[in-house]
Amino acid sequence: MEYQYAQAVEILRRTPTTLTVLLRGLPEAWTTSTAGPGTWSAYDVVGHLLHGDETDWVERARIILEHGEQRPFDSFDRTAMFEKYQGCTLDQLLAAFEQARANNLATLSEWHITPEKLARKGTHPALGTVTLSQLLATWVVHDLNHIGQIVEVMSRQYAEAVGPWSAYLAILTRPILTE
Amino acid sequence: MEYQYAQAVEILRRTPTTLTVLLRGLPEAWTTSTAGPGTWSAYDVVGHLLHGDETDWVERARIILEHGEQRPFDSFDRTAMFEKYQGCTLDQLLAAFEQARANNLATLSEWHITPEKLARKGTHPALGTVTLSQLLATWVVHDLNHIGQIVEVMSRQYAEAVGPWSAYLAILTRPILTE
Repeated sequence: MEYQYAQAVEILRRTPTTLTVLLRGLPEAWTTSTAGPGTWSAYDVVGHLLHGDETDWVERARIILEHGEQRPFDSFDRTAMFEKYQGCTLDQLLAAFEQARANNLATLSEWHITPEKLARKGTHPALGTVTLSQLLATWVVHDLNHIGQIVEVMSRQYAEAVGPWSAYLAILTRPILTE
Repeated sequence: MEYQYAQAVEILRRTPTTLTVLLRGLPEAWTTSTAGPGTWSAYDVVGHLLHGDETDWVERARIILEHGEQRPFDSFDRTAMFEKYQGCTLDQLLAAFEQARANNLATLSEWHITPEKLARKGTHPALGTVTLSQLLATWVVHDLNHIGQIVEVMSRQYAEAVGPWSAYLAILTRPILTE
């Protein structure tokens, strides 16, 4: 499928509500359990998404539009949420994520993203030259990846409970996402 | 995490709304695209979930409670949705899934599921002896598995669009779910 800006935004604006509907009010046994060392709980993932919206995605877009390839992006601390949101409830993180995402999409809208702007280039600190279009497509896939990670870690809580059916449930048996 | 009936139901009742919020009104490019032969689109997955709610999960629970191990479950046609719902819109399938799930949870509620009932046994045509508790846990993981499958197939539409970032996005590179 060819990348189209308007179609990308359709996903970006749905992610916070999707996670709110899936997670808000669930017993903590579902939302704070990991699947072992190196894996994240649903709560951790929501914090990670919030931190990205607060510090990373739109800031990188701004760097591309204002500085092009001259100024590399700052690197992103993918585990910052563990300290940053300590003490916050899941409901607070979900509400903050909805608000941050709405603000970010409003900012994008103000920038009047054109095909010419989408083709502009920036410099990723590890990956090298990237375009604004690639950044926004990655934001979308990053959302989808982490929705997938949430349902995966939740499913693992029932790895034993399903008994012999585990043979039919790939989500329980394939290597788990760790980032 | 130990299986608890009330916690399982919390997930079951969220799945249709989660998928409605994620999918309703999206451009068809997102919802009807597969990731190649043998993979399902988001539309296909919603049909599969609906068919399961219309014919399988609660029927199997009923067989366990009424017949125990004496009567094996009917086998489930996991690709029945391709013919059964031909011509239906995604919105129709989502609405039908919400309704079917609500009806099924009302039925479960009427049955007053106790720990004694959860321990009762039935016969799966391929897997052999299973319990009602395992059936209900599997229903939950089956939901989560298919939410994961939907975000996975959608993410693949941007496999090219993300450019070099694909190196960081496991959802784009690991073997895709096919059922």
